[in-house]
Amino acid sequence: MLEDAWLVATDGLIAEVGTGRPPPADVREDGGGRIALPGFVDSHTHVLFGRSRADEFERRLAGESYAEIAASGGGIRASVADLRARGEDELVTLASGRLRAMLASGTTTAEVKSGYGLSTSAELSSLRAVRRLRERTPVDVVPTFLGAHAIPPEFDGDRGGYVRSIVQETLPAVASEGLAEFCDAFCDVGAFSLEETREVLVAGSAAGLGLKVHAEEFERTGAAEMAAGLGAVSADHLLRIDDAGVAALAASGTVATLLPATAFFLRLPFAPARRLLDAGATLALATDYNPGSSPCASMALVWSLACCGMGLSVDEALRALTLGGARALGRGAELGTLLPGFRADVSLFDVDHYREVPYFFGENRCAAVLRGGRTVWRAAG
Amino acid sequence: MLEDAWLVATDGLIAEVGTGRPPPADVREDGGGRIALPGFVDSHTHVLFGRSRADEFERRLAGESYAEIAASGGGIRASVADLRARGEDELVTLASGRLRAMLASGTTTAEVKSGYGLSTSAELSSLRAVRRLRERTPVDVVPTFLGAHAIPPEFDGDRGGYVRSIVQETLPAVASEGLAEFCDAFCDVGAFSLEETREVLVAGSAAGLGLKVHAEEFERTGAAEMAAGLGAVSADHLLRIDDAGVAALAASGTVATLLPATAFFLRLPFAPARRLLDAGATLALATDYNPGSSPCASMALVWSLACCGMGLSVDEALRALTLGGARALGRGAELGTLLPGFRADVSLFDVDHYREVPYFFGENRCAAVLRGGRTVWRAAG
Repeated sequence: MLEDAWLVATDGLIAEVGTGRPPPADVREDGGGRIALPGFVDSHTHVLFGRSRADEFERRLAGESYAEIAASGGGIRASVADLRARGEDELVTLASGRLRAMLASGTTTAEVKSGYGLSTSAELSSLRAVRRLRERTPVDVVPTFLGAHAIPPEFDGDRGGYVRSIVQETLPAVASEGLAEFCDAFCDVGAFSLEETREVLVAGSAAGLGLKVHAEEFERTGAAEMAAGLGAVSADHLLRIDDAGVAALAASGTVATLLPATAFFLRLPFAPARRLLDAGATLALATDYNPGSSPCASMALVWSLACCGMGLSVDEALRALTLGGARALGRGAELGTLLPGFRADVSLFDVDHYREVPYFFGENRCAAVLRGGRTVWRAAG
Repeated sequence: MLEDAWLVATDGLIAEVGTGRPPPADVREDGGGRIALPGFVDSHTHVLFGRSRADEFERRLAGESYAEIAASGGGIRASVADLRARGEDELVTLASGRLRAMLASGTTTAEVKSGYGLSTSAELSSLRAVRRLRERTPVDVVPTFLGAHAIPPEFDGDRGGYVRSIVQETLPAVASEGLAEFCDAFCDVGAFSLEETREVLVAGSAAGLGLKVHAEEFERTGAAEMAAGLGAVSADHLLRIDDAGVAALAASGTVATLLPATAFFLRLPFAPARRLLDAGATLALATDYNPGSSPCASMALVWSLACCGMGLSVDEALRALTLGGARALGRGAELGTLLPGFRADVSLFDVDHYREVPYFFGENRCAAVLRGGRTVWRAAG
């Protein structure tokens, strides 16, 4: 931690960092003595959705399981039906509001997945909406194609047909329009099998996209080893990962992305963060913001959950919320730390020490956010 | 839930509630179509303190126990030394800021305890500061005397002497100045024994104060039964309560006050909320806002913790955050519900249904707060 610190940004990048008397500059932004951190890099979100599913939250608390709710028309399919009934403009407006809430708690970069469209046209429309989010909010948005999120109703009884439609139709269209940077798939019992997931990911890679995988969330499937083997940039969730999965991630460049807000909201045990760290894996932490399993905008609360829920230290979690997230988006040389050459994306907090950000849990202490050296958000008052 | 609803307040109390076209009124406040809830009644806080103890948070995450930290000069004693070194004005300023954060998340009434002074003069000064908080913020503040929070260093080796000083000196002074409404004591291994606690509470009752007890937090002591037997208004914490304690609370008018933010922050199992409810106990939920075990201002996050951590339904938790808190402060006929005769303390939330308040966890959706029918806080923007 530097006291009385300054940084100089040129063309949006950090040129110099120091303490004491700052050098001259064309434009000055005053941090007001606040604590500066790298902007949070939220590398796993599904914020492009329509209505909330708070009704299902109540049903789960009354004793229904996630699977029972899905079987009665709830779950991802409820969000698919809802999204398909809305226009692109409306989705952009809804998601922009969510990104502003994320920005206001210190997030400067957010990955956003498609995956509530599940037809070629609805997936393309979703990803076009995601592209428009980049112009609508100061948050830097990274688009991911998640056609393999669930089997849509049109393909009931024809799983193979849906996987083929992704591989032969949707993915090529997404790639040719340049709408996504990553291809993701939800590998789990009740979602896509290991082989189906592999088929989608191999095609995604062939189409020039980086790979991400929803792995080992509800059941152990081996998706973490597959992610490592395919050179995926990240394997995400990992609640059920076993020693072989941990070893595979640790031996690879695949980032282990943990989503403690989801475990908290679904009342499941947290992912084994300590085991992954001890084994040498790179950790990222993200919100997983989505209407079914993590309606959480705040990386600051994820920080508290990583400490109080998973037992990470303040510093281990901070690294995973910033540089870890950047690595999980293939941006580990650009984002996530306040050193020369990195982008001047900075969040300022009204605290005496950065450890007070996760400590004052449930309270938003973020006071201002800069992107590329310029203030893009400031708290009122 | 009423749609298109209004309420009429007269002299700060709700005179009438209805839907459709509202009757004429001298002053109108527009809820803007937002969701109106009774203001949260946070019946257990220690917000009158000096510095944060985020340093201890880091030490606990690194493996030190709460007891080890206390033994090395940390814990409550660290806050005592810190508070004694500060002036009353400074404490009022610090605590006012915390109450404003609580107000901004929907809290309209907050109990505030002394207990970081632990000498007659420092306890009186603390309670005078608490009295001043009532003038400094729109939150209605209820003062509680907690001299029996820890043994102060001057009485090391003379526990009996400290208890006598509370009973013979501090309590009479507190009562004669009318500085507290309740007398509380921390009954636990490492704090005050059952007999010491009883001595303090009996004296508190004789001095005309209502009784509250920190009970069954770290170890089972029987404090819950004692609280019920003494007619205490509440028994608080209850992580370790057993069937006899549950039965005693259920058979009494003593409210079971649960503090899930504390369990979360200390990484302890939650109190058995369901068992208490099933047995017929009245539940309250509160933040326990304090620097050592719950630096949490937000009753909205407590709501999420009550649902996701303890498995309460949205409605069960809401009742405990409002009417339950009111009962735990002896105000069950005045606060905690939006019916005629109750105070017009209302929090407005930017959500489509009140269940979305705990659902969007970690995000503050509170848009405005009214006390006695008048807007006292409004979110920016």
